[in-house]
Amino acid sequence: MMRRFCCSFCFLASLALNLFFVINPYYLSGWKKQKLSSWAEEAAAEAEAVALISCSGHGRAYLDGAVVDGKPVCECNTCYGGPHCSLFSPDCAADVNSGDPLFLEPFWMQHAASSAVVIAGWHRMSYTFSDHSYISRELENHIRRVHAVARNAITKGKHLIFGGGSTQLLAAAVYALSINLSSPAEVVAAVPCYPDYKTQTDFFENMHFEYDGDALLLKNSSDTTANVIEFVTSPNNPDGNLREAVVSQGVSVGAIYDHAYYWPHYTAIPAPANEDVMIFTISKLTGHAGTRLGWAFVKDEDVYQKMLSYIAEAEQGISREAQLRALKLMKTILNGDGMELFEYAYKKMSDRWRKLSDIVSLSKRFSIQEVPSLFCNFFEKVRGPSPAYAWLKCERNEDTNCTAVLRAANIIGRAGSLFNVEDRYVRLSLLKSDDDFNLLLLRLDKLVTQDDDRKHYFKNS
Amino acid sequence: MMRRFCCSFCFLASLALNLFFVINPYYLSGWKKQKLSSWAEEAAAEAEAVALISCSGHGRAYLDGAVVDGKPVCECNTCYGGPHCSLFSPDCAADVNSGDPLFLEPFWMQHAASSAVVIAGWHRMSYTFSDHSYISRELENHIRRVHAVARNAITKGKHLIFGGGSTQLLAAAVYALSINLSSPAEVVAAVPCYPDYKTQTDFFENMHFEYDGDALLLKNSSDTTANVIEFVTSPNNPDGNLREAVVSQGVSVGAIYDHAYYWPHYTAIPAPANEDVMIFTISKLTGHAGTRLGWAFVKDEDVYQKMLSYIAEAEQGISREAQLRALKLMKTILNGDGMELFEYAYKKMSDRWRKLSDIVSLSKRFSIQEVPSLFCNFFEKVRGPSPAYAWLKCERNEDTNCTAVLRAANIIGRAGSLFNVEDRYVRLSLLKSDDDFNLLLLRLDKLVTQDDDRKHYFKNS
Repeated sequence: MMRRFCCSFCFLASLALNLFFVINPYYLSGWKKQKLSSWAEEAAAEAEAVALISCSGHGRAYLDGAVVDGKPVCECNTCYGGPHCSLFSPDCAADVNSGDPLFLEPFWMQHAASSAVVIAGWHRMSYTFSDHSYISRELENHIRRVHAVARNAITKGKHLIFGGGSTQLLAAAVYALSINLSSPAEVVAAVPCYPDYKTQTDFFENMHFEYDGDALLLKNSSDTTANVIEFVTSPNNPDGNLREAVVSQGVSVGAIYDHAYYWPHYTAIPAPANEDVMIFTISKLTGHAGTRLGWAFVKDEDVYQKMLSYIAEAEQGISREAQLRALKLMKTILNGDGMELFEYAYKKMSDRWRKLSDIVSLSKRFSIQEVPSLFCNFFEKVRGPSPAYAWLKCERNEDTNCTAVLRAANIIGRAGSLFNVEDRYVRLSLLKSDDDFNLLLLRLDKLVTQDDDRKHYFKNS
Repeated sequence: MMRRFCCSFCFLASLALNLFFVINPYYLSGWKKQKLSSWAEEAAAEAEAVALISCSGHGRAYLDGAVVDGKPVCECNTCYGGPHCSLFSPDCAADVNSGDPLFLEPFWMQHAASSAVVIAGWHRMSYTFSDHSYISRELENHIRRVHAVARNAITKGKHLIFGGGSTQLLAAAVYALSINLSSPAEVVAAVPCYPDYKTQTDFFENMHFEYDGDALLLKNSSDTTANVIEFVTSPNNPDGNLREAVVSQGVSVGAIYDHAYYWPHYTAIPAPANEDVMIFTISKLTGHAGTRLGWAFVKDEDVYQKMLSYIAEAEQGISREAQLRALKLMKTILNGDGMELFEYAYKKMSDRWRKLSDIVSLSKRFSIQEVPSLFCNFFEKVRGPSPAYAWLKCERNEDTNCTAVLRAANIIGRAGSLFNVEDRYVRLSLLKSDDDFNLLLLRLDKLVTQDDDRKHYFKNS
């Protein structure tokens, strides 16, 4: 009885306290004012101190970098070393293998104040947002606005879903399009194509789908009963071509449009994309590959729900920190007329393309893809090329392994065979840091020059 | 020839500029000092302003919340509403269904200054860290130190890998343990068990594994040729029991130890865990479920490499923002002697358990699990219970659906059948916010009291 009394008393006291807060909505606010004012200053000072660590313009220190003598150390760009990244290694290879989009890093350094974000210790601890979803509606709204500025996609009437980079969304889309089919779907992509379609589909293969290779082969096949899922990369990685699905509409087809590069940075935008499943990624829009945030626009309610299930089962939605930071980046993009990032990125990429083209044009041994000038919906005029990659071809008969030819000249590219074509081709990334790109130009210029000299020597010998 | 000259000139100029930076390592630093000082202040002020929005202690405003009149609006706790979350809905149900660990939110509000972190616009844009991995070594080191303080795991000699919550690591571990088996692995867990083992294994089922139900059934089976992967949850969700694998060692077995709750918050730590595959999550350590960060300690090099491949194929590693924020939280935990979070969490959870036990002990209709007092390696003494969940049983014969009995009393729990046992059991989460927990006590007290009155009435009628 005594116990019951104590219990009841506790409740009454607790209830009274609740009522006190209800009646005094500003009590806690007052407490916060005392306790919570200036709480973010320490974090701000810490971040600013790290940004001031000198890495000679060839590296940077990070808040979560390795610490020596109480301070994070510089992490140097490829080919630079020493405590301040001031030591250049002359024999170091120009590594243009990966699509690491560091060419945009200087943009964010120039917009330090508007793009920084503070994460409070208690920020979004819950599994879900207040609408019980895993998706920040503010971020969704801002992403839709960025597409409206870029004029690269019709997002109205389509559901939006986030994934761990576009990578996870590719797998989620294959799952959603195949799960209810009566026989396993054949997953295809027209060559040359992004290697991960095959490696990821093989990796996660189950009884509902399997990778089947080149879409062009299937196009010409007489089998019209197959279930086909086609990856369509537009602009294409590696060659930058704008693409449409190639598999005949006569068979049961789902197309997954990978529009990672469908931004004014990399291509003219002839018209806004308007496919049923369209995938984008922050990696190639803002350059934040490490954020691991992609998004898909999905027209069909059922496919959308299945993709949502996939992300939920895989990891219960995407990091709230990644979403908050992405929101801040989108807000920075949308400042003013929202054109600045696109103009910066296009200028930089077209400038890189021109420099590279100038060198290759002097060579008979190498060629790169032709990229036509096209009318751009964003710039509202015809504009020249600015692709993410150079798709280099070794023209000499004996140069069947173009990657090896470049490697001998201290250039690391990505072999054509990875893109399901012959090794006469090699992909050179134009997306990396200024240091990487400048070293590529230096090495390529030397290769072309030597080559020229050798031809000259033979001619006169 | 002119073109070649121009090209060479550009390179020489570029090289000269590079040399200038090499020779003047502090030039850029000076530029940074001008441009980059105070860049984080705006973000700090913005975060502090949002924290000052009054939500009456029954909600909070977030930086990425919906904006009305230029300010994020309050997001209220369940059962509270109005612009300042000051309106309580008296008929609202006590929702203790999910394991949302918001009981730790006040801890982080009290440690606002030490737990805030600033993410610069250019923070970790690359796909990889400088060691070409997807894993922050600083975070790894700090996680190992937290385990050393908690004395709950032997981490030396084991590889660490991050995943999208423990959720993704469960799937990665099943993949790694099954991929090379000659026949499909049977995945099991002893009942009552966490529902996601089955739903996730079914969802991602392929030719290498399938879910096979209760580990206890398999233990008694005569089939000694099966390949078995056993999930072992210790302490167990829902009942808090410390567990070992039950499947006989005679068959080919891989055990995945889910130690989400193996922290002093929820259980005595009889000895540090030392299994081959151990999975933890930040959700249940710091309460940051939304961060989606889990980690696994893996002894075997081959299993580790396969789990790494899984995370790489799925999404190329975990968000750098989540990793940076997790690092800051770990640093906050490790401040001083590193005991504060654990003491706070244990005190809160044991207090909740005591309050709930006091009410249930007055009832003959309901019972909850017994949790023995045990010696704890962390507190270095025998300590009482503080489980994450109450595993409530309806004792009356006719109360076969205990969830419905509670629902009628305005309490939302999770049905026993989800944990693969009868619906006479229901799980009540003790992890949620103070508002949720207090409402649970209020409703449960009323239910027990009414019940008692009814018994009393019948006795005298």
